[in-house]
Amino acid sequence: MAYPGYGGGFGNFSGQMPGMQVPGTGPNMFPGGYSGYPAYSDNYSSADDAMWSYFTAVAGQDGEVDAEELQKCLTQSGISGTYSPFSLETCRIMIAMLDRDYTGKMGFNEFKELWAALNAWKQNFMTMDQDRSGTVEHHELSQAIAIMGYRLSPQTLTAIVKRYSKNGRIFFDDYVACCVKLRALTDFFRRRDHLQQGCVNLMYDDFLQGTMII
Amino acid sequence: MAYPGYGGGFGNFSGQMPGMQVPGTGPNMFPGGYSGYPAYSDNYSSADDAMWSYFTAVAGQDGEVDAEELQKCLTQSGISGTYSPFSLETCRIMIAMLDRDYTGKMGFNEFKELWAALNAWKQNFMTMDQDRSGTVEHHELSQAIAIMGYRLSPQTLTAIVKRYSKNGRIFFDDYVACCVKLRALTDFFRRRDHLQQGCVNLMYDDFLQGTMII
Repeated sequence: MAYPGYGGGFGNFSGQMPGMQVPGTGPNMFPGGYSGYPAYSDNYSSADDAMWSYFTAVAGQDGEVDAEELQKCLTQSGISGTYSPFSLETCRIMIAMLDRDYTGKMGFNEFKELWAALNAWKQNFMTMDQDRSGTVEHHELSQAIAIMGYRLSPQTLTAIVKRYSKNGRIFFDDYVACCVKLRALTDFFRRRDHLQQGCVNLMYDDFLQGTMII
Repeated sequence: MAYPGYGGGFGNFSGQMPGMQVPGTGPNMFPGGYSGYPAYSDNYSSADDAMWSYFTAVAGQDGEVDAEELQKCLTQSGISGTYSPFSLETCRIMIAMLDRDYTGKMGFNEFKELWAALNAWKQNFMTMDQDRSGTVEHHELSQAIAIMGYRLSPQTLTAIVKRYSKNGRIFFDDYVACCVKLRALTDFFRRRDHLQQGCVNLMYDDFLQGTMII
């Protein structure tokens, strides 16, 4: 299947930027046109302290959080602001997005990475939701996906927007779920696209391992 | 990636069977070892009548239901029995499972197909949940997936079971969500596996179109 425009960057965002990012201008560009995620910076010790206290308040003795604990942690931190707290389903895919060893849990380093991503996505959402209705429109989600650097066909964009809308509008929790899935599925795909050409060969078991948990 | 045992059938179930099915014995076996889903049979006119009344009570003027309407329809039908009604998220993937034209909606024929699948899955769940606690254990979900005919590696099975559990157990809604996703993702994969060998070549856009909505 021909797909024009692939290669302009995959869900390129920066945890340090308050707004959206112009596609293809991010750091860590790879030869094939993929852009990487910036490594978390350790510059913010007070922010780290706050995150550490939210995290340790719910983490088990193993120093990790599962989906229920993450939901509790994010709700208590108030990161959703005036929007509804994240659903358990969204927390599950947040865990899966960074769960490279398939433990179903998240350590503090991954939590910091998630925190940066959530703040960037929230900022994007608030920029679109200027009347603070709590929702954005279909075309705004489409634009946001394009601005984040994803190069998708109109048919795929339309299917995605419908999937994450409720009564014709997109709520914050669904918007974040969409961003998390886009990033997680893209990461999964990219790790297997050794030539960075937008095409992979997948075995059935590997395909299910990557997609069933996201 | 080598995957032993692939080819024993994919999510083989029959809407006409009350219990679980022995792997590889289903109808419509294809040369490559895939098993097909039986076409819905029109033998049950009184059941059809009941379904039709549930469906038309919520379907819009277009004669189709979206995810919110499907949730309402299934709740009103009482198909969950003593278990909690299906979440909106699960209803969304139910729509996606049969939404071959990506409209985000479901017509009556697809609704009947879903109804048969849900009854079979519910029967399986009740067989495992003999004390009617409303939940089943990890190993029971693993066994159910194997008995349905899916041939997955132990690592993939473990990751899936963790993903769909809550406080170490699996609730009915999550069990159904798992069954729906397994079937939908397998269908997506199988449609692209032209030689039926358990291996496909995927473009990025096609991959996201299939997996983002499920």
